[in-house]
Amino acid sequence: MKAAVLRGGRVVVRDDVPEPVPELGQVLVQVRACGICGSDLHFAKHGPTMLELGAQMKGMPEFGRMAPDLDRDVFMGHEFSAEVLEAGPGTVAPKPGTIVTSIPIMLTMAGVRDLVYSNDLPAGYSERMLLSAPMLLEVPNGLDPRQAALTEPMAVGLHAVNKSGIQRGAGALVLGCGPIGLAVIAALRRRGIEPIVASDYSAARRRVAAEMGAHETVDPAAEPAFDAWARAGRGGVVVFEAVGVPGLLDELLRDAPLGARIVVVGVCMERDPITPFFAISKELSLQFVLAYDTVEFAEALRAIAEGEIDVRPMITGEVGLDGVAQAFDDLARPDEHCKVLVVP
Amino acid sequence: MKAAVLRGGRVVVRDDVPEPVPELGQVLVQVRACGICGSDLHFAKHGPTMLELGAQMKGMPEFGRMAPDLDRDVFMGHEFSAEVLEAGPGTVAPKPGTIVTSIPIMLTMAGVRDLVYSNDLPAGYSERMLLSAPMLLEVPNGLDPRQAALTEPMAVGLHAVNKSGIQRGAGALVLGCGPIGLAVIAALRRRGIEPIVASDYSAARRRVAAEMGAHETVDPAAEPAFDAWARAGRGGVVVFEAVGVPGLLDELLRDAPLGARIVVVGVCMERDPITPFFAISKELSLQFVLAYDTVEFAEALRAIAEGEIDVRPMITGEVGLDGVAQAFDDLARPDEHCKVLVVP
Repeated sequence: MKAAVLRGGRVVVRDDVPEPVPELGQVLVQVRACGICGSDLHFAKHGPTMLELGAQMKGMPEFGRMAPDLDRDVFMGHEFSAEVLEAGPGTVAPKPGTIVTSIPIMLTMAGVRDLVYSNDLPAGYSERMLLSAPMLLEVPNGLDPRQAALTEPMAVGLHAVNKSGIQRGAGALVLGCGPIGLAVIAALRRRGIEPIVASDYSAARRRVAAEMGAHETVDPAAEPAFDAWARAGRGGVVVFEAVGVPGLLDELLRDAPLGARIVVVGVCMERDPITPFFAISKELSLQFVLAYDTVEFAEALRAIAEGEIDVRPMITGEVGLDGVAQAFDDLARPDEHCKVLVVP
Repeated sequence: MKAAVLRGGRVVVRDDVPEPVPELGQVLVQVRACGICGSDLHFAKHGPTMLELGAQMKGMPEFGRMAPDLDRDVFMGHEFSAEVLEAGPGTVAPKPGTIVTSIPIMLTMAGVRDLVYSNDLPAGYSERMLLSAPMLLEVPNGLDPRQAALTEPMAVGLHAVNKSGIQRGAGALVLGCGPIGLAVIAALRRRGIEPIVASDYSAARRRVAAEMGAHETVDPAAEPAFDAWARAGRGGVVVFEAVGVPGLLDELLRDAPLGARIVVVGVCMERDPITPFFAISKELSLQFVLAYDTVEFAEALRAIAEGEIDVRPMITGEVGLDGVAQAFDDLARPDEHCKVLVVP
């Protein structure tokens, strides 16, 4: 079958990937849509650095260690919806034709494997893939599989908001209106947080931010984000950093108000100097967040399927497997695109 | 009168400081003891940098801006106990001879002034100083004024523990056993936290850490602190960073366990590169802390006076005003000293 894989930092299309065969507990599915995630772009660019940093890092369970071999092809694509084709022998699963999604985790006899970066397990940038039957969530309400594919990024936003501990009465300042910033905005709006001030250099992204629930948007080239907050905000502020470029964190520490809570959801892959004096003087807190849990994932799907969150403004493009490489290039220009779906 | 002041980054003794005269709401006191704080050493060394960073920083109330003129003498000494000499006209105050302490804040008709770094207001490295009558706390139980002078650093430790949100059932790893690390240890022990693992390169400081309540001490040159935690600890861990040297924060992010909470109480004055990838991968949180509130200050005094916290092991030296300059030099060698008291 066909799949777009990462080979030496570039996306290439293969048509010789062996057809996956479901075993006990597994289900063969046809991928219906898979979002291109910013972390895939990061990985294509910074893969060796990420693996090196991962190897240096202590304190992680073995399960959390992501260590594909970059000298071999890497399957990617972890924001998927799919149609059930066939269950493995002795496996209880939704009937063929059912549209499902799943957190990108595979239960195997050898342990838990992730479906984010794998040398062996085809993922969402493939025609077909295997999923674990116990992890499947049926997509309800006849929701378009394209929209269901946004469950994963919306769960990231929901998780960031949950970890932030924000309560009604406080407002939010969201820096960066890429897919994750937008997911944060949607989760904040659904929780009744007001006001939500969103900042991005791209006018197109600011428009989507407003559609996703931001009460006020600001171009930081025209007005510093914290000035916009001071003008439009009220109450305490929780800041969501969804940009992830070097230098931004230190600017945040310098400019954030006394006692501010900063939730870092943007992944900066480079070493990034900060000035602890700023953070200490104002007793700031930084909560770094990643991913979501299974409950948050299911809640994100339900919120989309029931119309509480409309993800359609985020979907700005659609490509086949042959278009993934070009889409990776296009996504480097944030003014043109937000979420591009791969429809194999 | 006599005072030790900072002049061009060096401590010099003056004997021509005008005698302070208490006004309405003020009390003239005789300083009985004043601890030399690590932040005074920092300020002597990094004063211009601190002022420059303070000027860059936004989000601070005007009150919080510390801006003495470094071209003029700077009075210092904010960990003091003192004896009441005379109240200003119309001022209700404890009777002469009463031993008192106070948070280092002065209420004046021109606003709140701090008694940490001031061009105008003599502070604890002086024979006499003014205090605000409403801020005075009487030192109870006949507590030695030398011990009462440790109220301020012990309040810093108490505040750090309060801000950490640590609960019984979790353990603590304290990195750095200078006065602030020791104050954290004492506050943790008083709260019933177990185990408390404390790390310092200095054998003398590790001994004091054990006396102040650490259940286990470790020399990081012999065993990495997190290995010691893995060996001696149990339950979740809250990490207290009380060292404040460049590079340590990034090591912490690299080595801390998944989901760890890190409380940064050590002031690193330099720009300090971190690797956000470590923090994001493990969803770490950083809480930067500073100082204390009035309730914590009063609680620290009560804890010392009632014998809940014994500060005597921390006091390793005593000098007169003429010995402050030498003490600043001596304190750069942490193996010899912990808290040096100035007794004018």
